[in-house]
Amino acid sequence: MLAIGVDIGGTKIAAGAVDEQGRIVASATRRTPAQDPDLLEQAVADAVRELREHHPVVAVGIGAAGFVDADRRTVVFAANLAWRDRPLAANVEALVDLPVVVENDANAAGWAEFRFGPAADAENMLMLTVGTGLGGALVLDGKLIRGAGGFAGELAHMTIVPDGQWCGCGNRGCLEQYTSGSALVRSARAGAIGGDPLLAPLLAAAGGDPAAIDGPLVTRLAQEGDEGARREIAGIGAWLGRGSASIAALLDPEIIVVGGGVIAAGDLLLDPARDAYARSLTARTHRVLAPFVPASMGNEAGMIGAADLARGGSSD
Amino acid sequence: MLAIGVDIGGTKIAAGAVDEQGRIVASATRRTPAQDPDLLEQAVADAVRELREHHPVVAVGIGAAGFVDADRRTVVFAANLAWRDRPLAANVEALVDLPVVVENDANAAGWAEFRFGPAADAENMLMLTVGTGLGGALVLDGKLIRGAGGFAGELAHMTIVPDGQWCGCGNRGCLEQYTSGSALVRSARAGAIGGDPLLAPLLAAAGGDPAAIDGPLVTRLAQEGDEGARREIAGIGAWLGRGSASIAALLDPEIIVVGGGVIAAGDLLLDPARDAYARSLTARTHRVLAPFVPASMGNEAGMIGAADLARGGSSD
Amino acid sequence: MLAIGVDIGGTKIAAGAVDEQGRIVASATRRTPAQDPDLLEQAVADAVRELREHHPVVAVGIGAAGFVDADRRTVVFAANLAWRDRPLAANVEALVDLPVVVENDANAAGWAEFRFGPAADAENMLMLTVGTGLGGALVLDGKLIRGAGGFAGELAHMTIVPDGQWCGCGNRGCLEQYTSGSALVRSARAGAIGGDPLLAPLLAAAGGDPAAIDGPLVTRLAQEGDEGARREIAGIGAWLGRGSASIAALLDPEIIVVGGGVIAAGDLLLDPARDAYARSLTARTHRVLAPFVPASMGNEAGMIGAADLARGGSSD
Amino acid sequence: MLAIGVDIGGTKIAAGAVDEQGRIVASATRRTPAQDPDLLEQAVADAVRELREHHPVVAVGIGAAGFVDADRRTVVFAANLAWRDRPLAANVEALVDLPVVVENDANAAGWAEFRFGPAADAENMLMLTVGTGLGGALVLDGKLIRGAGGFAGELAHMTIVPDGQWCGCGNRGCLEQYTSGSALVRSARAGAIGGDPLLAPLLAAAGGDPAAIDGPLVTRLAQEGDEGARREIAGIGAWLGRGSASIAALLDPEIIVVGGGVIAAGDLLLDPARDAYARSLTARTHRVLAPFVPASMGNEAGMIGAADLARGGSSD
Repeated sequence: MLAIGVDIGGTKIAAGAVDEQGRIVASATRRTPAQDPDLLEQAVADAVRELREHHPVVAVGIGAAGFVDADRRTVVFAANLAWRDRPLAANVEALVDLPVVVENDANAAGWAEFRFGPAADAENMLMLTVGTGLGGALVLDGKLIRGAGGFAGELAHMTIVPDGQWCGCGNRGCLEQYTSGSALVRSARAGAIGGDPLLAPLLAAAGGDPAAIDGPLVTRLAQEGDEGARREIAGIGAWLGRGSASIAALLDPEIIVVGGGVIAAGDLLLDPARDAYARSLTARTHRVLAPFVPASMGNEAGMIGAADLARGGSSD
Repeated sequence: MLAIGVDIGGTKIAAGAVDEQGRIVASATRRTPAQDPDLLEQAVADAVRELREHHPVVAVGIGAAGFVDADRRTVVFAANLAWRDRPLAANVEALVDLPVVVENDANAAGWAEFRFGPAADAENMLMLTVGTGLGGALVLDGKLIRGAGGFAGELAHMTIVPDGQWCGCGNRGCLEQYTSGSALVRSARAGAIGGDPLLAPLLAAAGGDPAAIDGPLVTRLAQEGDEGARREIAGIGAWLGRGSASIAALLDPEIIVVGGGVIAAGDLLLDPARDAYARSLTARTHRVLAPFVPASMGNEAGMIGAADLARGGSSD
Repeated sequence: MLAIGVDIGGTKIAAGAVDEQGRIVASATRRTPAQDPDLLEQAVADAVRELREHHPVVAVGIGAAGFVDADRRTVVFAANLAWRDRPLAANVEALVDLPVVVENDANAAGWAEFRFGPAADAENMLMLTVGTGLGGALVLDGKLIRGAGGFAGELAHMTIVPDGQWCGCGNRGCLEQYTSGSALVRSARAGAIGGDPLLAPLLAAAGGDPAAIDGPLVTRLAQEGDEGARREIAGIGAWLGRGSASIAALLDPEIIVVGGGVIAAGDLLLDPARDAYARSLTARTHRVLAPFVPASMGNEAGMIGAADLARGGSSD
Repeated sequence: MLAIGVDIGGTKIAAGAVDEQGRIVASATRRTPAQDPDLLEQAVADAVRELREHHPVVAVGIGAAGFVDADRRTVVFAANLAWRDRPLAANVEALVDLPVVVENDANAAGWAEFRFGPAADAENMLMLTVGTGLGGALVLDGKLIRGAGGFAGELAHMTIVPDGQWCGCGNRGCLEQYTSGSALVRSARAGAIGGDPLLAPLLAAAGGDPAAIDGPLVTRLAQEGDEGARREIAGIGAWLGRGSASIAALLDPEIIVVGGGVIAAGDLLLDPARDAYARSLTARTHRVLAPFVPASMGNEAGMIGAADLARGGSSD
């Protein structure tokens, strides 16, 4: 039984026919008409039609950045697309005559990791996606947690430092300001500007221009053994561990999956997270510590998870 | 269909036969043999037998302070009782020949508020119990959240201030150190010792002895209009709101129930919590803000909730 | 006995002949050749010559943004001008044949407030200049404090919030990030973006564009009674008081003078500072609290202070 | 020319005749009548008389814990002795017929380090005394800084962590709560209670009782190479460095002297302080970093410094 998963990115719509083992059997892409919701829905429908030509499918799942209501029908708000209270599921259903569910993209990707990735044997998973920003997904007792209004999983905006770094959301000290690719780059640049001698090799690798320091450069130098770059990655790793420990005090997950571009740093990121987690978690001597493991589903996680959710996938 | 709920406190065991509407139809008490687990179980069984003489019951639910495993059978650790990995459910079942479930007492009390209290119409509830310490319970999609090992709900030990006040749990900056009866008293005493003129009336009411300032005194003066006492309660209220906003970013509850002794201060506690919550919650303009409401089930919440959980109570 | 004070700004050089009571008897201005140190020194010399045509002067004092060495001869580093280890005093002396001293501009302005402004009767003064950034000056026992290398008074870069807002200096949580015109604007914009209802009038006054909120607008609305604008100014005022309390724990000043553009807000800024200071200062019941008073010497403070320092002005 | 220095401790009065090179040529001790100010002054006078029998002296300097007014005549307040606005200098002068000056004991000890210890060649010194609590002394341009009311040097009560650990002074987040012997012990005990595996050897060395962990034990294990003990000392060392960096931003000292019992840990304390200082100090690339050096004058520093101050010692 196949379902189609659609991942709507800022520039590209990626659709795939996904089987019950999470394998993509066919795929199709379209450009994203970011400023026109009608055209965007038609592009989605068009990709769905292309896949259906050769594959019978039972449902469509759409993953999109933004707040999706608890019924998984409406995009309440999306920062990068022209959606405000858009009844996306109903609109696409009208175009393709298949049941459609909409899901926040981080939730969809998290669901793929839970169903087919490193958390496939777990019932309780915390997922953190450390990309430019920070995303998250929660599965408790085998269920994706959406919250009363569909807004759950916004762990990026837990306040982790009172009076801390301002966040684009209008608050200060949000976790995303401390553990994300942006946080990594900002810290490395600031240290380089401040003349930190440990960051001299990184600055040199950036041609002497602090503004040329970016995440891949820090990661590359760290992998080559550069101490300054390693310290910077360890810095955001430690906050990843501390933030996870607060979440674990509340939710007691059995596994913590870490995805996103920064996971390219591997254990250079995860080991400091593990250390900080072990030191920050309350009652740590009375419980089994959840392991931190890298996500395994890659860029197609959102598509696969959306398809599985549309099919009514569950962990049972 | 009646079930018995048992609330094991540090000095008293309170048992009650509870009906399906959460009403206590009969009750029995015993003293707590805190240092002898065998005697304690016999005392529980004895109270159960007393209630069964006149009431047919189908199950027994036991609420106890401490970590209870996810199967709700074993007390892993209790700070105040002599339990370490104690198979409490099995032991009591052997004595009373009824199915027994064990639950953390804050979870049991939270369940009562969810089923029969102010959250009766909700599916997603955050409960915070502000007593001497801070307790918590979570219900998501109608299910009490226990976590992988039964340790969920320990919101008291989320880190809210890095490098903050040391906590008895061995970490620093735990939420309990900022919003609890102990936090209230410590702040009021420190201010009085430091000569804060706004706290002069409170200090005078304590006979000039900072150590004589306690929670009920602060609450009483606050209710009488004393500005210093009100500021102190507002202080822990603001942290209650900030902590709740971090939790809400993660879980998006539809209602926040506040119980515990400090709730005697009513809106003097809750209004600052509401303000801080509204100011701290991410994406607040896109969502409905969860209301903060006082718990209504009183001291019997633990007993009632334990009974309902034993009966397999659900919100459906 | 007249001395010339020169205030080198980013766009304008302002020079004045100043008498022993701190009065400007004549003035001259030149444009700042910011990128050419030689031309800049010639422009200074030119302004000095113009003033000397009609006024006998004994010395020249130059105030400039940047780090000036402890001998008051050399500009070690200036962020906005093309000086690196520039022997400014010697160079200007060679051009004008008068003794020249160089002083950091915040120090020079602070000295004017100490000699002729609200601190004229004091021996120990803390001055904070709350402009776009934050400047400072210290006078202890009647002496301007320069430190071992001339770097004293950089109170803007005391760490006030560990892991706080990044600062352009390469550190986090610097006081300047919490109390300055920039901090005020950033906070007001963030609140407006975040949808804070209290900031709706401010946002409306900015034509609905958060980026159009600036310091003068916040101050004007605050003076007109707008609650949101007042709260924002009170926010940076409270940090001003807290920072001052830490400095006072260390240095025990008898008066705290506050200058800079943000002081236009008057007691809307200073009252919250006074409150926070009184609540944060250690041993406050055993000591007289230093008053917070506005600076009175205006934009000419730097010129006047530089002149007085050149003349060897002292408080005796 | 000899002067007598008197160090009034909680249990012992130590007096010494001190020469102009800071050498003690004779000494005398008395027990401290802590609760009777009259008897205490007589005991001081008695010790002075004993020393004068064989040594001609020109003045008496008394060092005492507490707040001493700026005229160095009156003890405003002392936590451990029965003094409140006590005219100690006048009273002792009446008994011994010699000029008497009173000085805060940390100031007196700091002065000894400045005149005869590692800062003998400096003009600007920051001294921190890391004992059970935290003391401090400042010398700027060769002058001991007392502040307007004699309260300067209370660096222990600079706020270093907003909303941090409560302090006995009535404030939160004071530096003393983060770098002091008490802070060291509290952290080590908390970690041991929390089950930190790195602290297992320390806990074992304390016989398994966290309450038996004390400062000398942590220091001993650290010196023997124990990783957990070293981490704990490094923890308070890092805060020592961070606090010093904030002070240095303000005052730009040329040397930082560290005394007190915890300095027994030597570079295990100072190296982390140096690292944190270098990373936290603003504009670090433009200036010479002040060295951290251990105090050298030992327990007699207070006596020697008080004597030198009484004689009118200066660095010129």
